[in-house]
Amino acid sequence: MAAPFKHTIHDAHHHFGWDHAIAPAAKVAPGDRIELECIDASAGQITAASTVADVTAMDSAKVNPVTGPIEVDGAEPGDILRIEIEGFAPSGFGWTANIPGFGLLADQFRDPHLKIWDYAADTLAPALFSEMARVPLKPFIGTIGLAPAEPGRHSIIPPRRMGGNMDARDLAAGTTLYLPVEVAGALLSVGDTHAAQGDGEVCGTAIESPMTVALKLDLIKQRPLAFPRFSTPGPVSRHLDARGYEATMGIGPDLMGCARDAVAGMIDHLGALHGLAAEDAYLLCSVCGDLRISEIVDQPNWVVSLYFPRIVFD
Amino acid sequence: MAAPFKHTIHDAHHHFGWDHAIAPAAKVAPGDRIELECIDASAGQITAASTVADVTAMDSAKVNPVTGPIEVDGAEPGDILRIEIEGFAPSGFGWTANIPGFGLLADQFRDPHLKIWDYAADTLAPALFSEMARVPLKPFIGTIGLAPAEPGRHSIIPPRRMGGNMDARDLAAGTTLYLPVEVAGALLSVGDTHAAQGDGEVCGTAIESPMTVALKLDLIKQRPLAFPRFSTPGPVSRHLDARGYEATMGIGPDLMGCARDAVAGMIDHLGALHGLAAEDAYLLCSVCGDLRISEIVDQPNWVVSLYFPRIVFD
Repeated sequence: MAAPFKHTIHDAHHHFGWDHAIAPAAKVAPGDRIELECIDASAGQITAASTVADVTAMDSAKVNPVTGPIEVDGAEPGDILRIEIEGFAPSGFGWTANIPGFGLLADQFRDPHLKIWDYAADTLAPALFSEMARVPLKPFIGTIGLAPAEPGRHSIIPPRRMGGNMDARDLAAGTTLYLPVEVAGALLSVGDTHAAQGDGEVCGTAIESPMTVALKLDLIKQRPLAFPRFSTPGPVSRHLDARGYEATMGIGPDLMGCARDAVAGMIDHLGALHGLAAEDAYLLCSVCGDLRISEIVDQPNWVVSLYFPRIVFD
Repeated sequence: MAAPFKHTIHDAHHHFGWDHAIAPAAKVAPGDRIELECIDASAGQITAASTVADVTAMDSAKVNPVTGPIEVDGAEPGDILRIEIEGFAPSGFGWTANIPGFGLLADQFRDPHLKIWDYAADTLAPALFSEMARVPLKPFIGTIGLAPAEPGRHSIIPPRRMGGNMDARDLAAGTTLYLPVEVAGALLSVGDTHAAQGDGEVCGTAIESPMTVALKLDLIKQRPLAFPRFSTPGPVSRHLDARGYEATMGIGPDLMGCARDAVAGMIDHLGALHGLAAEDAYLLCSVCGDLRISEIVDQPNWVVSLYFPRIVFD
């Protein structure tokens, strides 16, 4: 039996932006197990009853809240915070949106679009996107990071070397994450929980879903770490891979352009295969399509591929 | 029982560079099964007896030969050539090199480095890199493409919209590849076979290995295709994923910089974990580490992660 949680940090303790001057919501010791309640990335602006009008009305100053910060006793700049992601208590509610001006193909998708998800929080069975498509779920933490040394309030949207809004879909149950500490106490905050996402999060949102997260924290003293790293306990794509993939490529001298071409190609391909509307295909690519860099050395042209799992339509 | 091969294109029919003026080595009909003998990417300049001196001496005008071209009866510009990759007869010999001036971290790895592989061509058992490390194998085609419409001889190193040196590691047995036809007869050439490679091919070479390749060709008439696409018959990472991954991240405003930081981080990490020399870690990342774009929307910073399979050291 695991040790009991030493702390529960409730979702009332959420904040917007990174700032090492924000007072800690809790103080924990290395070795402690904690649980955190995380609200969704819209901070409640999108609900199960929402329509696309709520996407248009969203207050962008109130997005991507994180729960915390949590002070870790004894943490000092130059240490590494070791975070075991033990598990999730998902809510069953989620949303995915195209938010105008945001996302890899913002120039091609100018209108807001919204999908509300109602998934089985207990079984995590593949979630219904439409009559034709079901998305395998794998809850993970979209935003997990430490306060930066640089004073002031910093936007939470871009990830940084101390982590933050990394949106790396394998920060899931069983994964251990290592973050570089920049300030005394480390000041960990966590939020932006997702029920599923592909590598890239191409439309800008995943299955955004409130969840409670269980973590175990430890310190590694005075070891250099340039950027976050993590270890997964096993395979990372088994929920997606059984039926193989459709893959589209972008080829050219700019990785960003390659990625855009690969995603645009998959939107066309899913439309041709399944009659899917382009905005629906874009959202589906975001929640379960993976961007892989196939080659990055055959100068001057690189290849980025978007892998879409066929199981979604099988 | 499969239909017999209609054509065997021997490795004497290899050429350097793309040029639609090169005379076809064979003419085939849609529906034909063919086999092609492919020599290695050094065109025999690296052998099982080679030392690092042969890397330095390599004639760069004689690299990346392809076998062909094969004229497909009835193919016209605007068609799609559909290529079923049926299987491989691998040779058991391979090489991986750091070639000065080539590769993602060419500025950090200025000296030539060479690993000669001797793998089991019949069982394809994981290949010994060192006493500590074994690399799971999955043969695939590094270079497969069609002649471009633009006249003249074009370097074979960069991939193009008609395919070519895509180095996409899932162009493996069972995969179906779709390439856009730009000239009458399509003019397919194939080479640069690899026994294993990670997504990215970060040091610039894979396990470069001569093989015979079996393909089935078909035409799809007059359908637009901006870039190549492919379908895999099933999972693509099962040979690597059983023990999970170590992953390092690069975070910043430039995808290329992110990828470089992620790879540099893994080289450091493998050194710390296993005492691996940096140049060996770089080669290992190239043959079995995967570059994934974790997020590409949280402006202005993106995340690229290098996933290294733990099974290599287990």
